[in-house]
Amino acid sequence: MTPSAETPAGAPALPRTLVKDLPALVGRPVRLQGWLHHVRRLGRLNFAVLRDRTGLAQIRVETSQLQPLRTAPDESVVEVSGRAAADPRAPGGVEVVDPVFRLLEPALLPTPVTLSRPTLKESLPVLLDHAAVALRHPGRRRALELMAALAEGFRSTLRGLGFTEVFTPKVVGATAEGGAEVFRLEYFDTPGYLTQSPQLYKQMLVGALERVFEVGPVFRAEPHDTGRHLAQYCSLDAEMGFIDDVGDVIAVAEEALAGMMAAAATLLPHESPVLMPQGLPRIPFWDAMALLEAAGLRKASDRPDLTPAGERWLGQWALRERASDFLVVTGYPQAERPFYTHPDPDHPGYSRGFDVLFRGLEIVTGGQRLHREADYLRVMAERGMDPAPFASYLEAFRHGMPPHGGFAIGLERVAKQWLGAQNIREITAFPRYRGRLAP
Amino acid sequence: MTPSAETPAGAPALPRTLVKDLPALVGRPVRLQGWLHHVRRLGRLNFAVLRDRTGLAQIRVETSQLQPLRTAPDESVVEVSGRAAADPRAPGGVEVVDPVFRLLEPALLPTPVTLSRPTLKESLPVLLDHAAVALRHPGRRRALELMAALAEGFRSTLRGLGFTEVFTPKVVGATAEGGAEVFRLEYFDTPGYLTQSPQLYKQMLVGALERVFEVGPVFRAEPHDTGRHLAQYCSLDAEMGFIDDVGDVIAVAEEALAGMMAAAATLLPHESPVLMPQGLPRIPFWDAMALLEAAGLRKASDRPDLTPAGERWLGQWALRERASDFLVVTGYPQAERPFYTHPDPDHPGYSRGFDVLFRGLEIVTGGQRLHREADYLRVMAERGMDPAPFASYLEAFRHGMPPHGGFAIGLERVAKQWLGAQNIREITAFPRYRGRLAP
Repeated sequence: MTPSAETPAGAPALPRTLVKDLPALVGRPVRLQGWLHHVRRLGRLNFAVLRDRTGLAQIRVETSQLQPLRTAPDESVVEVSGRAAADPRAPGGVEVVDPVFRLLEPALLPTPVTLSRPTLKESLPVLLDHAAVALRHPGRRRALELMAALAEGFRSTLRGLGFTEVFTPKVVGATAEGGAEVFRLEYFDTPGYLTQSPQLYKQMLVGALERVFEVGPVFRAEPHDTGRHLAQYCSLDAEMGFIDDVGDVIAVAEEALAGMMAAAATLLPHESPVLMPQGLPRIPFWDAMALLEAAGLRKASDRPDLTPAGERWLGQWALRERASDFLVVTGYPQAERPFYTHPDPDHPGYSRGFDVLFRGLEIVTGGQRLHREADYLRVMAERGMDPAPFASYLEAFRHGMPPHGGFAIGLERVAKQWLGAQNIREITAFPRYRGRLAP
Repeated sequence: MTPSAETPAGAPALPRTLVKDLPALVGRPVRLQGWLHHVRRLGRLNFAVLRDRTGLAQIRVETSQLQPLRTAPDESVVEVSGRAAADPRAPGGVEVVDPVFRLLEPALLPTPVTLSRPTLKESLPVLLDHAAVALRHPGRRRALELMAALAEGFRSTLRGLGFTEVFTPKVVGATAEGGAEVFRLEYFDTPGYLTQSPQLYKQMLVGALERVFEVGPVFRAEPHDTGRHLAQYCSLDAEMGFIDDVGDVIAVAEEALAGMMAAAATLLPHESPVLMPQGLPRIPFWDAMALLEAAGLRKASDRPDLTPAGERWLGQWALRERASDFLVVTGYPQAERPFYTHPDPDHPGYSRGFDVLFRGLEIVTGGQRLHREADYLRVMAERGMDPAPFASYLEAFRHGMPPHGGFAIGLERVAKQWLGAQNIREITAFPRYRGRLAP
């Protein structure tokens, strides 16, 4: 038998106490299990901090009781039997007194990063190299919990709107987004690619299910070293048929974002409140360009495009002028959008594609799609694309497809902006980017 | 403007009616939108069937009303305005009468597979080549909805048990499962692999979150042509710390499966009921071998292993002897399990690894894991593995890891067995296997 993690032989079988339950157990015996987060040695009186999946517990330790911990580095796995006692100076108003420690699994050496600081001080490469330890820091763990809450907020909102979750291939023979930023692989005896998005699949599935969503990884061989790109990220994708126009798609994107923000606020109620007015402010792309020109951030002769600096400025503008952390930018130039984007017949050269900015960073991209085979063939010819690799996709449009559209939300980007992190790599468990493939 | 999918110019703005709502609208005007599933022409009286995301509606059509459909192949996107009328002979006891059809998006030619049959009759390669159309068949759509329900049943059960959802890399520098069945790719300038499982990541995350789960794709370059393997499948993974022994892991796997079965039964209440006793029947691996020997399915001198035929026989045995569609097989030989599997000290040569069979097919594999660095280094040396590529994984065990374990459920396999499908490729939206990369 492995040494039991639950009960010493002969001891009464007190069930394991979780840290979050301590306040309800004042005066009662408790038995915690977790990691020895840190020990503060103050002479006769010492404080040990135990960490479990629900939080940190302060343990008041007489020097005579310290013996089992004397050779135990931080992060040793320990059990503490003691009594919960009220103390207004302790975090949560409760601490554990009269502790008896049992060392379950000793750490073998000091940690490579200092987990007991309120904020990790090591450089990002060090934190990422030692992710197996650094992720144990409460701040890093909070980012992981935030992403779980955001993903579930997305899913539950879409399920409530009649969307069905789907699971599509990540290895493909043709890519929707094109460009050089695609990872190539050996698929048995033929070349394949990692998907840059589930775009083609979610459109085909509109024919089967009308409303679909997917939560899954997408891959971009992004060569640039930025704080907002990852080579793999989690894409929250949705697609819906029988729309009137792109406004229906934007409305669902807004509902999805509202569901995500509500889920995040429930998880971390004391964190940065998000300003999200009912009906997010919208600005046409050409009006955004005019604002940026007036602000001196672009010249009329510049190629129409929204740069990261432009996005940041518009984020500030939306906060100042519309009291919103979000801004929907509508009607992007057709040339800036993928081939499947529906044009806006009222504004030649412009599309029914939109983005949503959150605190000045693009977190959503979406739009209405073409839904007729002839339109696809014309656009592909205009763009010099060979339709052959898209034959099974184009078949969908030959057999009756309703007007439809959809969007994709970058999960890590939402979390980054929510937390105010500088770099998206800080809040991703095991980020992938050029030069990093481990752990 | 695109032709509106909602309201003809000047018509009263009756909201779109979903098929599922027809029974509540008997006697009232309705406006359906969907695909023209089929038209049965019977002379003066005809029946059109419209399909939307909620079901099929029968529409009673006089020949004089057929005009707009005369040139419209099946799968054309149509709108039908009419009146809901009770008719005990119609599916669901209601049909639409006095229809006015509007052709929204005509299909351009007849479908490559016949969707109006109760069961698709075309060969599997034809169905998969034309997936964009074949997936519209109600039977295929039902399999997709089943998988969505199963995945959500898994997630909601684990969330209720204090597990946090995580998102881990699918491109890695070292693989946990080893073997030849791994896809290689170019990761920027270095070689990488597609993950065969999130094993290493979920173990590392036990240090941060204690209890984690992930729903995501895994990749196996499976060379064999079988009805139960896919080159990409959706793995429902869980991992938990502070276990007593593998029994805690099996108990959570049982809860997860029960949550999945309950979700599926809610979605498709009239489908095959699943026999799932409280506390699934368990059989030690060596007892299973003895049963198979007694049944003449193996010889005592055979290598201890559970073949597909052996699994099927045990599935029948569990049904007959234990009135269960499930059977937990415990204590697999250590040599048959991956390096991270915890041995069973009471039975040298055997492990704390288990599988769960569902109707005679392995759908879950799990176990207790090693949790000490020295144990990993010893096992890796025994197996001739170089520990260097696993350095950041092994770091977790140097810094305090509790006894832990977990499991993975193959989503498509569960759906296959639930539906009684012959081949897993039948029920996967866009399956991947040797020779298939499209659509």
